Amino acid sequence: MRTLRITLAYDGGRYVGWQRQDNGPSIQGLVERALEAIEGRAVAVTGAGRTDAGVHALGQVASFRLGHPIPPAALVRALNARLPGEVRVLAAAEAAADFNARFAAREKIYRYRILNRTIDDPFERRYSWHVPRPLDFEALADALALVEGRHDFAAFQAAGSEVASTVRTLSGVSAQRVAWSPLRGGVEPAAGDEGGVLSLEFGGDGFLRHMVRNLVGSVVQVGLGRRRPDWLHDVLASRDRRRAGPTAPPQGLFLVAVRFGETGGGGGRAGRPWLEEER
Amino acid sequence: MRTLRITLAYDGGRYVGWQRQDNGPSIQGLVERALEAIEGRAVAVTGAGRTDAGVHALGQVASFRLGHPIPPAALVRALNARLPGEVRVLAAAEAAADFNARFAAREKIYRYRILNRTIDDPFERRYSWHVPRPLDFEALADALALVEGRHDFAAFQAAGSEVASTVRTLSGVSAQRVAWSPLRGGVEPAAGDEGGVLSLEFGGDGFLRHMVRNLVGSVVQVGLGRRRPDWLHDVLASRDRRRAGPTAPPQGLFLVAVRFGETGGGGGRAGRPWLEEER
Repeated sequence: MRTLRITLAYDGGRYVGWQRQDNGPSIQGLVERALEAIEGRAVAVTGAGRTDAGVHALGQVASFRLGHPIPPAALVRALNARLPGEVRVLAAAEAAADFNARFAAREKIYRYRILNRTIDDPFERRYSWHVPRPLDFEALADALALVEGRHDFAAFQAAGSEVASTVRTLSGVSAQRVAWSPLRGGVEPAAGDEGGVLSLEFGGDGFLRHMVRNLVGSVVQVGLGRRRPDWLHDVLASRDRRRAGPTAPPQGLFLVAVRFGETGGGGGRAGRPWLEEER
Repeated sequence: MRTLRITLAYDGGRYVGWQRQDNGPSIQGLVERALEAIEGRAVAVTGAGRTDAGVHALGQVASFRLGHPIPPAALVRALNARLPGEVRVLAAAEAAADFNARFAAREKIYRYRILNRTIDDPFERRYSWHVPRPLDFEALADALALVEGRHDFAAFQAAGSEVASTVRTLSGVSAQRVAWSPLRGGVEPAAGDEGGVLSLEFGGDGFLRHMVRNLVGSVVQVGLGRRRPDWLHDVLASRDRRRAGPTAPPQGLFLVAVRFGETGGGGGRAGRPWLEEER
Protein backbone atom coordinates (compact mmCIF):
# COMPACT_ATOMS: atom_id res chain seq x y z
CA MET A 1 0.00 0.00 0.00
CA ARG A 2 1.17 3.54 -0.84
CA THR A 3 0.57 6.54 1.37
CA LEU A 4 -0.43 9.72 -0.43
CA ARG A 5 -0.88 13.33 0.54
CA ILE A 6 -3.18 15.75 -1.27
CA THR A 7 -3.66 19.50 -0.98
CA LEU A 8 -7.21 20.80 -1.41
CA ALA A 9 -9.06 24.08 -1.76
CA TYR A 10 -12.77 24.24 -1.12
CA ASP A 11 -15.68 26.62 -0.82
CA GLY A 12 -17.31 25.21 2.31
CA GLY A 13 -20.55 27.18 1.98
CA ARG A 14 -22.73 24.22 1.03
CA TYR A 15 -21.08 21.58 3.21
CA VAL A 16 -21.41 20.33 6.79
CA GLY A 17 -17.63 20.73 7.18
CA TRP A 18 -14.57 18.63 6.52
CA GLN A 19 -15.72 15.69 8.61
CA ARG A 20 -18.20 13.06 7.49
CA GLN A 21 -21.54 13.56 9.25
CA ASP A 22 -25.07 12.25 9.00
CA ASN A 23 -26.71 15.60 8.40
CA GLY A 24 -25.34 16.45 4.96
CA PRO A 25 -22.47 16.32 2.50
CA SER A 26 -18.93 16.73 3.87
CA ILE A 27 -15.66 17.40 2.06
CA GLN A 28 -14.12 14.25 3.56
CA GLY A 29 -17.09 12.20 2.33
CA LEU A 30 -16.78 13.62 -1.20
CA VAL A 31 -13.06 12.85 -1.36
CA GLU A 32 -13.57 9.36 0.04
CA ARG A 33 -16.28 8.60 -2.50
CA ALA A 34 -14.07 9.84 -5.36
CA LEU A 35 -11.16 7.70 -4.11
CA GLU A 36 -13.41 4.65 -3.75
CA ALA A 37 -14.29 4.95 -7.44
CA ILE A 38 -10.57 4.82 -8.29
CA GLU A 39 -9.48 2.19 -5.73
CA GLY A 40 -12.52 -0.10 -6.05
CA ARG A 41 -12.99 -0.27 -2.30
CA ALA A 42 -13.50 2.14 0.60
CA VAL A 43 -10.60 4.50 1.37
CA ALA A 44 -10.37 6.38 4.68
CA VAL A 45 -9.07 9.94 4.38
CA THR A 46 -7.56 11.97 7.24
CA GLY A 47 -7.54 15.78 7.08
CA ALA A 48 -5.00 17.99 8.83
CA GLY A 49 -7.71 20.40 9.98
CA ARG A 50 -11.33 19.56 10.72
CA THR A 51 -12.96 22.66 9.31
CA ASP A 52 -16.51 23.32 10.52
CA ALA A 53 -19.67 23.73 8.45
CA GLY A 54 -19.39 26.70 6.10
CA VAL A 55 -15.65 27.18 6.64
CA HIS A 56 -13.42 27.33 3.54
CA ALA A 57 -9.94 26.02 2.73
CA LEU A 58 -7.21 27.34 0.46
CA GLY A 59 -4.69 24.67 1.45
CA GLN A 60 -6.19 21.80 3.44
CA VAL A 61 -3.95 18.70 3.46
CA ALA A 62 -5.23 15.14 3.68
CA SER A 63 -3.62 11.69 3.70
CA PHE A 64 -4.78 8.18 2.80
CA ARG A 65 -3.47 4.78 1.73
CA LEU A 66 -3.98 3.45 -1.75
CA GLY A 67 -3.27 0.14 -3.51
CA HIS A 68 -3.91 1.53 -7.01
CA PRO A 69 -0.70 2.50 -8.87
CA ILE A 70 -2.12 5.74 -10.36
CA PRO A 71 0.64 8.39 -10.54
CA PRO A 72 0.06 11.52 -8.38
CA ALA A 73 -0.53 13.89 -11.32
CA ALA A 74 -3.13 11.54 -12.79
CA LEU A 75 -4.71 11.18 -9.35
CA VAL A 76 -5.21 14.98 -9.20
CA ARG A 77 -7.04 14.86 -12.54
CA ALA A 78 -9.08 11.76 -11.65
CA LEU A 79 -10.22 13.23 -8.33
CA ASN A 80 -11.10 16.62 -9.82
CA ALA A 81 -13.13 14.86 -12.53
CA ARG A 82 -15.23 13.26 -9.75
CA LEU A 83 -15.49 16.18 -7.32
CA PRO A 84 -17.89 19.14 -7.56
CA GLY A 85 -16.40 22.48 -8.66
CA GLU A 86 -16.45 23.81 -5.08
CA VAL A 87 -13.74 21.28 -4.18
CA ARG A 88 -10.45 21.14 -6.09
CA VAL A 89 -7.44 18.95 -5.49
CA LEU A 90 -4.45 21.21 -6.14
CA ALA A 91 -1.61 18.72 -5.71
CA ALA A 92 -0.84 15.11 -4.79
CA ALA A 93 2.41 13.48 -3.70
CA GLU A 94 3.75 10.22 -2.33
CA ALA A 95 4.35 10.36 1.43
CA ALA A 96 6.20 8.24 3.96
CA ALA A 97 4.32 5.05 4.87
CA ASP A 98 3.36 6.34 8.31
CA PHE A 99 2.43 9.87 7.27
CA ASN A 100 -0.82 11.04 8.81
CA ALA A 101 -1.91 14.58 7.90
CA ARG A 102 -3.62 15.13 11.22
CA PHE A 103 -0.85 13.98 13.53
CA ALA A 104 2.07 15.22 11.42
CA ALA A 105 0.72 18.79 11.16
CA ARG A 106 3.00 21.13 13.12
CA GLU A 107 1.33 24.40 12.26
CA LYS A 108 -1.91 25.50 10.71
CA ILE A 109 -2.64 28.94 9.38
CA TYR A 110 -6.14 30.34 9.43
CA ARG A 111 -7.39 33.59 7.93
CA TYR A 112 -10.55 35.40 8.95
CA ARG A 113 -11.98 38.07 6.65
CA ILE A 114 -14.25 40.91 7.80
CA LEU A 115 -16.02 43.31 5.45
CA ASN A 116 -16.29 46.56 7.37
CA ARG A 117 -18.50 48.99 5.54
CA THR A 118 -22.09 50.12 5.79
CA ILE A 119 -23.42 48.19 2.82
CA ASP A 120 -22.64 44.51 2.24
CA ASP A 121 -20.97 43.45 -1.01
CA PRO A 122 -22.59 40.80 -3.24
CA PHE A 123 -19.14 39.32 -3.97
CA GLU A 124 -17.91 39.29 -0.37
CA ARG A 125 -20.98 37.96 1.37
CA ARG A 126 -20.04 34.30 1.04
CA TYR A 127 -16.43 34.94 2.04
CA SER A 128 -16.46 37.47 4.87
CA TRP A 129 -18.32 38.60 7.97
CA HIS A 130 -20.18 41.81 7.23
CA VAL A 131 -19.70 44.20 10.17
CA PRO A 132 -21.56 47.39 9.14
CA ARG A 133 -20.49 49.61 12.06
CA PRO A 134 -17.02 51.20 11.87
CA LEU A 135 -14.26 49.21 13.56
CA ASP A 136 -11.34 50.87 15.34
CA PHE A 137 -8.61 48.99 13.52
CA GLU A 138 -5.80 49.98 15.93
CA ALA A 139 -7.73 48.84 19.00
CA LEU A 140 -8.69 45.59 17.30
CA ALA A 141 -5.08 44.92 16.32
CA ASP A 142 -3.89 45.74 19.87
CA ALA A 143 -6.35 43.22 21.31
CA LEU A 144 -5.34 40.63 18.77
CA ALA A 145 -1.66 40.97 19.66
CA LEU A 146 -2.46 39.92 23.24
CA VAL A 147 -3.44 36.39 22.21
CA GLU A 148 -0.16 35.61 20.50
CA GLY A 149 2.02 33.11 22.37
CA ARG A 150 1.35 30.16 24.66
CA HIS A 151 -1.94 30.45 26.56
CA ASP A 152 -4.76 28.41 27.96
CA PHE A 153 -7.51 29.14 25.41
CA ALA A 154 -10.32 27.45 27.37
CA ALA A 155 -12.38 30.68 27.23
CA PHE A 156 -12.35 30.52 23.42
CA GLN A 157 -13.34 26.89 23.03
CA ALA A 158 -16.82 25.88 21.87
CA ALA A 159 -19.01 24.89 24.80
CA GLY A 160 -19.16 21.14 25.30
CA SER A 161 -15.78 20.37 23.75
CA GLU A 162 -13.70 17.71 25.48
CA VAL A 163 -9.96 17.85 24.94
CA ALA A 164 -7.10 16.79 27.21
CA SER A 165 -5.52 20.24 27.26
CA THR A 166 -6.73 23.66 26.20
CA VAL A 167 -3.21 25.13 26.07
CA ARG A 168 -2.13 26.16 22.57
CA THR A 169 0.59 28.34 21.08
CA LEU A 170 -0.32 31.00 18.53
CA SER A 171 2.32 32.64 16.37
CA GLY A 172 2.16 34.99 13.43
CA VAL A 173 -1.06 36.57 14.61
CA SER A 174 -1.70 39.65 12.52
CA ALA A 175 -4.36 42.02 11.25
CA GLN A 176 -4.17 43.88 7.99
CA ARG A 177 -6.44 45.96 5.83
CA VAL A 178 -6.56 44.43 2.37
CA ALA A 179 -7.81 45.69 -0.96
CA TRP A 180 -11.41 46.64 -0.78
CA SER A 181 -13.22 44.16 -2.99
CA PRO A 182 -11.14 41.57 -4.82
CA LEU A 183 -12.99 41.70 -8.12
CA ARG A 184 -12.64 45.45 -8.47
CA GLY A 185 -9.03 45.49 -9.54
CA GLY A 186 -7.73 49.03 -9.41
CA VAL A 187 -11.13 50.65 -9.08
CA GLU A 188 -11.44 52.88 -6.04
CA PRO A 189 -14.38 52.65 -3.67
CA ALA A 190 -17.08 55.24 -4.34
CA ALA A 191 -18.00 57.90 -1.82
CA GLY A 192 -19.89 56.33 1.05
CA ASP A 193 -18.07 53.04 0.70
CA GLU A 194 -15.76 53.75 3.59
CA GLY A 195 -13.96 50.86 5.19
CA GLY A 196 -12.94 47.69 3.49
CA VAL A 197 -11.78 44.18 4.16
CA LEU A 198 -9.83 43.29 7.29
CA SER A 199 -7.83 40.10 7.12
CA LEU A 200 -6.89 38.53 10.45
CA GLU A 201 -4.35 35.75 10.40
CA PHE A 202 -3.60 33.09 13.00
CA GLY A 203 -0.77 30.56 12.96
CA GLY A 204 -0.81 27.91 15.64
CA ASP A 205 0.31 24.45 16.67
CA GLY A 206 -3.32 23.52 17.20
CA PHE A 207 -6.74 25.09 17.43
CA LEU A 208 -9.64 24.28 19.72
CA ARG A 209 -13.11 24.00 18.26
CA HIS A 210 -14.41 27.49 17.24
CA MET A 211 -11.23 29.02 18.69
CA VAL A 212 -10.49 31.33 15.75
CA ARG A 213 -14.12 32.39 15.40
CA ASN A 214 -14.40 33.07 19.15
CA LEU A 215 -11.16 35.08 19.10
CA VAL A 216 -12.47 37.08 16.13
CA GLY A 217 -15.85 37.63 17.79
CA SER A 218 -13.99 38.97 20.83
CA VAL A 219 -11.57 41.32 19.09
CA VAL A 220 -14.52 42.72 17.10
CA GLN A 221 -16.11 43.67 20.43
CA VAL A 222 -12.96 45.71 21.04
CA GLY A 223 -13.02 47.16 17.52
CA LEU A 224 -16.62 48.28 18.10
CA GLY A 225 -15.51 50.10 21.26
CA ARG A 226 -17.52 47.88 23.61
CA ARG A 227 -14.39 46.57 25.32
CA ARG A 228 -10.84 47.79 25.81
CA PRO A 229 -7.99 45.81 24.22
CA ASP A 230 -6.69 44.44 27.55
CA TRP A 231 -10.08 42.89 28.21
CA LEU A 232 -8.68 40.02 26.09
CA HIS A 233 -6.19 39.37 28.91
CA ASP A 234 -9.02 39.06 31.42
CA VAL A 235 -11.00 36.70 29.20
CA LEU A 236 -7.95 34.46 28.63
CA ALA A 237 -7.26 34.38 32.38
CA SER A 238 -10.88 33.55 33.21
CA ARG A 239 -10.83 30.32 31.15
CA ASP A 240 -14.60 30.94 30.97
CA ARG A 241 -16.35 30.70 27.59
CA ARG A 242 -19.13 32.99 28.84
CA ARG A 243 -16.67 35.84 29.21
CA ALA A 244 -15.56 35.89 25.54
CA GLY A 245 -17.36 37.57 22.66
CA PRO A 246 -19.86 35.87 20.33
CA THR A 247 -18.68 33.31 17.79
CA ALA A 248 -17.96 34.97 14.41
CA PRO A 249 -19.87 33.36 11.50
CA PRO A 250 -18.19 30.55 9.52
CA GLN A 251 -18.14 32.09 6.03
CA GLY A 252 -15.27 34.46 6.91
CA LEU A 253 -12.90 31.65 7.92
CA PHE A 254 -10.28 30.00 5.68
CA LEU A 255 -7.80 27.24 6.46
CA VAL A 256 -4.92 28.78 4.50
CA ALA A 257 -2.05 26.31 4.92
CA VAL A 258 -0.70 23.41 6.92
CA ARG A 259 2.96 23.08 7.78
CA PHE A 260 4.57 19.75 8.58
CA GLY A 261 7.69 19.16 10.63
CA GLU A 262 10.01 16.20 10.74
CA THR A 263 8.39 12.82 10.60
CA GLY A 264 9.52 11.40 13.92
CA GLY A 265 7.75 8.29 12.72
CA GLY A 266 10.53 6.08 11.40
CA GLY A 267 10.92 5.17 7.77
CA GLY A 268 14.33 6.76 7.51
CA ARG A 269 12.91 10.20 6.77
CA ALA A 270 13.66 11.80 10.12
CA GLY A 271 15.13 15.22 9.57
CA ARG A 272 13.41 15.75 6.23
CA PRO A 273 10.28 17.79 6.26
CA TRP A 274 7.54 16.15 4.25
CA LEU A 275 6.56 19.46 3.01
CA GLU A 276 8.12 22.84 3.44
CA GLU A 277 4.90 24.67 3.16
CA GLU A 278 1.57 24.29 1.53
CA ARG A 279 0.70 27.72 0.31
CA MET B 1 -42.56 63.50 -9.41
CA ARG B 2 -38.87 63.26 -8.50
CA THR B 3 -36.27 61.60 -10.69
CA LEU B 4 -33.74 59.44 -8.87
CA ARG B 5 -30.55 57.68 -9.81
CA ILE B 6 -29.21 54.62 -8.00
CA THR B 7 -25.91 52.75 -8.27
CA LEU B 8 -26.05 48.97 -7.86
CA ALA B 9 -23.72 46.04 -7.50
CA TYR B 10 -24.98 42.53 -8.19
CA ASP B 11 -23.86 38.95 -8.50
CA GLY B 12 -25.73 37.99 -11.67
CA GLY B 13 -25.15 34.23 -11.35
CA ARG B 14 -28.74 33.33 -10.48
CA TYR B 15 -30.51 35.88 -12.65
CA VAL B 16 -31.73 36.08 -16.25
CA GLY B 17 -29.94 39.42 -16.57
CA TRP B 18 -30.76 43.06 -15.92
CA GLN B 19 -33.88 43.11 -18.04
CA ARG B 20 -37.27 41.79 -16.99
CA GLN B 21 -38.04 38.53 -18.80
CA ASP B 22 -40.56 35.74 -18.62
CA ASN B 23 -38.07 32.96 -18.00
CA GLY B 24 -36.84 33.87 -14.53
CA PRO B 25 -35.91 36.58 -12.03
CA SER B 26 -34.18 39.71 -13.33
CA ILE B 27 -32.35 42.47 -11.47
CA GLN B 28 -34.67 45.09 -12.99
CA GLY B 29 -37.70 43.10 -11.82
CA LEU B 30 -36.33 42.83 -8.28
CA VAL B 31 -35.64 46.56 -8.06
CA GLU B 32 -39.04 47.43 -9.52
CA ARG B 33 -40.80 45.19 -7.02
CA ALA B 34 -38.85 46.73 -4.12
CA LEU B 35 -39.73 50.25 -5.37
CA GLU B 36 -43.38 49.33 -5.80
CA ALA B 37 -43.51 48.37 -2.10
CA ILE B 38 -42.24 51.86 -1.21
CA GLU B 39 -44.22 53.87 -3.78
CA GLY B 40 -47.47 51.93 -3.51
CA ARG B 41 -47.77 51.58 -7.29
CA ALA B 42 -45.68 50.22 -10.17
CA VAL B 43 -42.39 52.02 -10.86
CA ALA B 44 -40.52 51.54 -14.15
CA VAL B 45 -36.73 51.40 -13.78
CA THR B 46 -34.24 52.05 -16.60
CA GLY B 47 -30.72 50.64 -16.40
CA ALA B 48 -27.69 52.16 -18.10
CA GLY B 49 -26.45 48.74 -19.26
CA ARG B 50 -28.60 45.74 -20.06
CA THR B 51 -26.35 43.04 -18.63
CA ASP B 52 -27.07 39.52 -19.88
CA ALA B 53 -27.90 36.42 -17.85
CA GLY B 54 -25.08 35.53 -15.47
CA VAL B 55 -23.23 38.83 -15.95
CA HIS B 56 -22.30 40.81 -12.82
CA ALA B 57 -22.20 44.52 -11.98
CA LEU B 58 -19.98 46.52 -9.66
CA GLY B 59 -21.48 49.86 -10.65
CA GLN B 60 -24.68 49.59 -12.69
CA VAL B 61 -26.69 52.83 -12.70
CA ALA B 62 -30.48 52.99 -12.97
CA SER B 63 -33.05 55.78 -13.02
CA PHE B 64 -36.75 56.04 -12.17
CA ARG B 65 -39.42 58.51 -11.14
CA LEU B 66 -40.91 58.52 -7.67
CA GLY B 67 -43.72 60.40 -5.95
CA HIS B 68 -42.74 59.27 -2.44
CA PRO B 69 -40.66 61.86 -0.51
CA ILE B 70 -38.22 59.32 0.97
CA PRO B 71 -34.71 60.85 1.23
CA PRO B 72 -32.01 59.17 -0.90
CA ALA B 73 -30.09 57.69 2.07
CA ALA B 74 -33.26 56.15 3.47
CA LEU B 75 -34.13 54.86 0.00
CA VAL B 76 -30.82 52.97 -0.11
CA ARG B 77 -31.65 51.28 3.19
CA ALA B 78 -35.27 50.57 2.24
CA LEU B 79 -34.30 48.99 -1.07
CA ASN B 80 -31.53 46.88 0.45
CA ALA B 81 -33.95 45.64 3.11
CA ARG B 82 -36.19 44.33 0.30
CA LEU B 83 -33.55 43.01 -2.11
CA PRO B 84 -31.72 39.66 -1.87
CA GLY B 85 -28.08 39.77 -0.72
CA GLU B 86 -26.82 39.26 -4.29
CA VAL B 87 -28.13 42.73 -5.18
CA ARG B 88 -27.04 45.81 -3.22
CA VAL B 89 -27.92 49.43 -3.80
CA LEU B 90 -24.70 51.35 -3.10
CA ALA B 91 -25.93 54.91 -3.52
CA ALA B 92 -28.96 56.99 -4.45
CA ALA B 93 -29.22 60.62 -5.53
CA GLU B 94 -31.71 63.10 -6.91
CA ALA B 95 -31.31 63.63 -10.66
CA ALA B 96 -32.53 66.18 -13.19
CA ALA B 97 -36.17 65.65 -14.15
CA ASP B 98 -35.30 64.33 -17.60
CA PHE B 99 -32.39 62.10 -16.53
CA ASN B 100 -32.54 58.65 -18.09
CA ALA B 101 -29.69 56.30 -17.16
CA ARG B 102 -29.78 54.53 -20.49
CA PHE B 103 -29.77 57.56 -22.77
CA ALA B 104 -27.54 59.77 -20.63
CA ALA B 105 -24.76 57.17 -20.36
CA ARG B 106 -21.70 58.42 -22.26
CA GLU B 107 -19.31 55.63 -21.39
CA LYS B 108 -19.55 52.20 -19.88
CA ILE B 109 -16.64 50.23 -18.52
CA TYR B 110 -16.68 46.46 -18.58
CA ARG B 111 -14.15 44.07 -17.08
CA TYR B 112 -13.66 40.46 -18.13
CA ARG B 113 -11.76 38.10 -15.79
CA ILE B 114 -9.97 34.95 -16.97
CA LEU B 115 -8.47 32.37 -14.62
CA ASN B 116 -5.53 30.92 -16.52
CA ARG B 117 -4.13 27.94 -14.68
CA THR B 118 -4.46 24.18 -14.97
CA ILE B 119 -6.79 23.65 -12.04
CA ASP B 120 -9.89 25.76 -11.49
CA ASP B 121 -10.31 27.68 -8.23
CA PRO B 122 -13.40 27.16 -6.05
CA PHE B 123 -13.48 30.90 -5.28
CA GLU B 124 -12.99 32.08 -8.86
CA ARG B 125 -15.36 29.75 -10.66
CA ARG B 126 -18.39 32.01 -10.35
CA TYR B 127 -16.41 35.13 -11.29
CA SER B 128 -14.05 34.16 -14.09
CA TRP B 129 -13.66 32.05 -17.22
CA HIS B 130 -11.39 29.11 -16.47
CA VAL B 131 -8.95 28.68 -19.37
CA PRO B 132 -6.74 25.74 -18.35
CA ARG B 133 -4.22 25.90 -21.21
CA PRO B 134 -1.46 28.52 -20.97
CA LEU B 135 -2.21 31.85 -22.64
CA ASP B 136 0.44 33.95 -24.36
CA PHE B 137 -0.28 37.17 -22.53
CA GLU B 138 1.72 39.41 -24.87
CA ALA B 139 -0.01 38.07 -28.00
CA LEU B 140 -3.41 38.40 -26.34
CA ALA B 141 -2.67 42.00 -25.32
CA ASP B 142 -1.42 42.82 -28.85
CA ALA B 143 -4.65 41.49 -30.35
CA LEU B 144 -6.72 43.39 -27.82
CA ALA B 145 -5.00 46.68 -28.64
CA LEU B 146 -6.23 46.36 -32.26
CA VAL B 147 -9.89 46.78 -31.27
CA GLU B 148 -9.39 50.11 -29.52
CA GLY B 149 -10.84 53.08 -31.40
CA ARG B 150 -13.80 53.57 -33.71
CA HIS B 151 -14.74 50.44 -35.66
CA ASP B 152 -17.67 48.61 -37.13
CA PHE B 153 -18.07 45.77 -34.61
CA ALA B 154 -20.66 43.81 -36.63
CA ALA B 155 -18.46 40.69 -36.47
CA PHE B 156 -18.65 40.76 -32.66
CA GLN B 157 -22.38 41.21 -32.34
CA ALA B 158 -24.66 38.34 -31.22
CA ALA B 159 -26.36 36.71 -34.20
CA GLY B 160 -29.88 37.97 -34.77
CA SER B 161 -29.36 41.40 -33.18
CA GLU B 162 -31.00 44.33 -34.90
CA VAL B 163 -29.47 47.74 -34.32
CA ALA B 164 -29.32 50.81 -36.54
CA SER B 165 -25.53 50.97 -36.52
CA THR B 166 -22.83 48.56 -35.44
CA VAL B 167 -20.16 51.26 -35.26
CA ARG B 168 -18.85 51.84 -31.73
CA THR B 169 -15.81 53.53 -30.18
CA LEU B 170 -13.74 51.67 -27.61
CA SER B 171 -11.25 53.47 -25.39
CA GLY B 172 -9.17 52.43 -22.43
CA VAL B 173 -8.92 48.84 -23.64
CA SER B 174 -6.33 47.07 -21.52
CA ALA B 175 -5.16 43.70 -20.25
CA GLN B 176 -3.42 43.15 -16.96
CA ARG B 177 -2.37 40.25 -14.82
CA VAL B 178 -3.89 40.71 -11.39
CA ALA B 179 -3.28 39.04 -8.04
CA TRP B 180 -3.76 35.36 -8.28
CA SER B 181 -6.80 34.59 -6.15
CA PRO B 182 -8.40 37.49 -4.32
CA LEU B 183 -9.02 35.68 -1.04
CA ARG B 184 -5.44 34.57 -0.64
CA GLY B 185 -4.03 37.90 0.45
CA GLY B 186 -0.25 37.76 0.36
CA VAL B 187 -0.04 33.99 0.01
CA GLU B 188 1.98 32.89 -2.99
CA PRO B 189 0.69 30.28 -5.42
CA ALA B 190 2.02 26.78 -4.78
CA ALA B 191 4.17 24.95 -7.31
CA GLY B 192 2.03 23.83 -10.24
CA ASP B 193 -0.31 26.77 -9.86
CA GLU B 194 1.25 28.67 -12.70
CA GLY B 195 -0.72 31.42 -14.31
CA GLY B 196 -3.29 33.56 -12.59
CA VAL B 197 -6.06 35.96 -13.26
CA LEU B 198 -6.11 38.13 -16.36
CA SER B 199 -8.32 41.19 -16.19
CA LEU B 200 -9.37 42.68 -19.55
CA GLU B 201 -10.97 46.08 -19.47
CA PHE B 202 -13.12 47.80 -22.10
CA GLY B 203 -14.40 51.36 -22.05
CA GLY B 204 -16.82 52.35 -24.77
CA ASP B 205 -19.57 54.70 -25.82
CA GLY B 206 -21.80 51.70 -26.39
CA PHE B 207 -21.64 47.95 -26.65
CA LEU B 208 -23.45 45.59 -29.00
CA ARG B 209 -25.05 42.46 -27.60
CA HIS B 210 -22.33 39.95 -26.53
CA MET B 211 -19.69 42.32 -27.92
CA VAL B 212 -17.30 42.12 -24.97
CA ARG B 213 -17.70 38.35 -24.64
CA ASN B 214 -17.13 37.87 -28.39
CA LEU B 215 -14.04 40.10 -28.28
CA VAL B 216 -12.72 38.12 -25.31
CA GLY B 217 -13.44 34.79 -27.01
CA SER B 218 -11.49 36.03 -30.02
CA VAL B 219 -8.42 37.37 -28.22
CA VAL B 220 -8.27 34.11 -26.25
CA GLN B 221 -7.93 32.30 -29.59
CA VAL B 222 -4.87 34.45 -30.14
CA GLY B 223 -3.58 33.81 -26.61
CA LEU B 224 -3.90 30.07 -27.22
CA GLY B 225 -1.75 30.42 -30.35
CA ARG B 226 -4.52 29.41 -32.74
CA ARG B 227 -4.54 32.83 -34.43
CA ARG B 228 -2.07 35.66 -34.85
CA PRO B 229 -2.85 39.03 -33.25
CA ASP B 230 -3.56 40.78 -36.59
CA TRP B 231 -6.30 38.23 -37.29
CA LEU B 232 -8.43 40.58 -35.19
CA HIS B 233 -8.06 43.17 -37.98
CA ASP B 234 -9.37 40.67 -40.54
CA VAL B 235 -12.34 39.72 -38.35
CA LEU B 236 -13.27 43.37 -37.78
CA ALA B 237 -13.03 44.09 -41.52
CA SER B 238 -15.15 41.05 -42.41
CA ARG B 239 -18.15 42.29 -40.39
CA ASP B 240 -19.02 38.56 -40.24
CA ARG B 241 -19.94 37.02 -36.88
CA ARG B 242 -18.87 33.58 -38.15
CA ARG B 243 -15.26 34.79 -38.46
CA ALA B 244 -14.86 35.75 -34.78
CA GLY B 245 -14.02 33.43 -31.89
CA PRO B 246 -16.57 31.76 -29.62
CA THR B 247 -18.54 33.79 -27.08
CA ALA B 248 -16.78 33.81 -23.70
CA PRO B 249 -19.03 32.63 -20.82
CA PRO B 250 -21.02 35.22 -18.84
CA GLN B 251 -19.63 34.66 -15.32
CA GLY B 252 -16.33 36.43 -16.15
CA LEU B 253 -18.03 39.69 -17.16
CA PHE B 254 -18.61 42.72 -14.90
CA LEU B 255 -20.20 46.08 -15.67
CA VAL B 256 -17.73 48.13 -13.67
CA ALA B 257 -18.91 51.70 -14.07
CA VAL B 258 -21.06 54.08 -16.07
CA ARG B 259 -19.99 57.60 -16.90
CA PHE B 260 -22.43 60.37 -17.71
CA GLY B 261 -21.76 63.47 -19.74
CA GLU B 262 -23.66 66.69 -19.98
CA THR B 263 -27.39 66.44 -19.99
CA GLY B 264 -28.18 67.98 -23.34
CA GLY B 265 -31.76 67.53 -22.20
CA GLY B 266 -32.74 70.95 -20.94
CA GLY B 267 -33.54 71.69 -17.35
CA GLY B 268 -30.75 74.24 -17.05
CA ARG B 269 -28.12 71.64 -16.24
CA ALA B 270 -26.26 71.66 -19.53
CA GLY B 271 -22.55 71.76 -18.89
CA ARG B 272 -22.81 70.03 -15.54
CA PRO B 273 -22.09 66.35 -15.51
CA TRP B 274 -24.67 64.46 -13.48
CA LEU B 275 -21.99 62.29 -12.17
CA GLU B 276 -18.27 62.50 -12.57
CA GLU B 277 -17.75 58.82 -12.27
CA GLU B 278 -19.38 55.85 -10.71
CA ARG B 279 -16.54 53.69 -9.54
